[in-house]
Amino acid sequence: MSGFVSFVGSGPGDPELLTLKAVDRLKRADAVLFDDLSSGPILAHARPGADLVGVGKRAGRPSPRQDHVSRLLVEYAQGGGRIVRLKSGDSGLFGRLEEELVALRAAGIPYEIVPGVPSAVAAAAAAGIPLTRRLTARRVQFVTGHDISGQLPEDMNLAALADPTASTVVFMGKRTFPKLLALLVAHGLPQDTPAILAEGVSTPEQEIVRSTVAGLAERLAEAVGDKPALILYGPLAEA
Amino acid sequence: MSGFVSFVGSGPGDPELLTLKAVDRLKRADAVLFDDLSSGPILAHARPGADLVGVGKRAGRPSPRQDHVSRLLVEYAQGGGRIVRLKSGDSGLFGRLEEELVALRAAGIPYEIVPGVPSAVAAAAAAGIPLTRRLTARRVQFVTGHDISGQLPEDMNLAALADPTASTVVFMGKRTFPKLLALLVAHGLPQDTPAILAEGVSTPEQEIVRSTVAGLAERLAEAVGDKPALILYGPLAEA
Repeated sequence: MSGFVSFVGSGPGDPELLTLKAVDRLKRADAVLFDDLSSGPILAHARPGADLVGVGKRAGRPSPRQDHVSRLLVEYAQGGGRIVRLKSGDSGLFGRLEEELVALRAAGIPYEIVPGVPSAVAAAAAAGIPLTRRLTARRVQFVTGHDISGQLPEDMNLAALADPTASTVVFMGKRTFPKLLALLVAHGLPQDTPAILAEGVSTPEQEIVRSTVAGLAERLAEAVGDKPALILYGPLAEA
Repeated sequence: MSGFVSFVGSGPGDPELLTLKAVDRLKRADAVLFDDLSSGPILAHARPGADLVGVGKRAGRPSPRQDHVSRLLVEYAQGGGRIVRLKSGDSGLFGRLEEELVALRAAGIPYEIVPGVPSAVAAAAAAGIPLTRRLTARRVQFVTGHDISGQLPEDMNLAALADPTASTVVFMGKRTFPKLLALLVAHGLPQDTPAILAEGVSTPEQEIVRSTVAGLAERLAEAVGDKPALILYGPLAEA
């Protein structure tokens, strides 16, 4: 008899931003498959004796292949018991959830998805700003700044992303932001649009840099560093 | 000496989707100002004797004026102590956070923002789907379906919203969806784009209806009901 998988969003990093449900699922797990970004003190909620299996996805480092991770998840689940697949932020946002769901369905393994606090909303909270504003930001959008090969995706909707009346959060986009910005400016985004670089959100290494899109692109062209980061731009000036 | 305000996102409704930090702030609060949508068992975390103040925002009902809520928040904070301003979902997403931040800053009152699980990601989790997909949905966007007068906002970026390669979540959009859809179709959104109506997400009244954008518009033109709801559309078919 196969096991049951709980996909659990672990939030942006601060263990206090776990949900009560996430803690419950960790406490009851026989095995926890975790990415490096969702580990640390969060794993302390697992019971002694639970299998803690790092599957090694880490910002800026080579990662195990997704099909290997999916296969490992299926193998653990086929062994029975309660499996937690821990993913940073919310699993449904840029977490490669799709591939793992497909693998579980193909194997007939039941699962649930426990939503988490996305790093994007935690970044805005840390910067002290609302992502939406009643008059000036009635749309918010999240995009990824890199495709599977680490490059800027080719088929981005640049008109949507250059809209100065939306708040935009770019995930995993530090390396490609200078290139993205050139395209956005060509589509009409003003160079002086407010921008925020949010690194290590909600962790002891948190750093929030306020600038403009042009200022951030210049900074990131010089050095990107290793810390996981989000880039926010749009009507983000202090309310 | 003035108090300290914690804006706390209470998540989509399920008390188990509170974060540990939200529970901590509720336990230590001298007063909790809550919307109807963020109340119920969640308030049981407050200590006996804390002031529990309903400020009455409720889907589909007349609400107190926002300036009244902001003034009340300032008055409580000026009385000293620890104040929790509880908002459903994440406070920074369509929560009128901006107005309350402005009021606190003007009064010189310190605050923090504790992010929460947005109803949009909880709706996707309840429907069993990822909001982003590696090849077909690399952008996700959240919009509001009504402006301050309850009408469809006039200045929506319809081209961005009609993009069939993004996952879109419409907040508070049940009443205006038929009108919105007509505009989106005129901008190229296929009538058979998958759509989900998610009502009462994560509560005992949860109802998830899978359809197409055309099917949902037809259904909502007949009856909208009272339950808070989100509309999701885009590449949302089961993975």
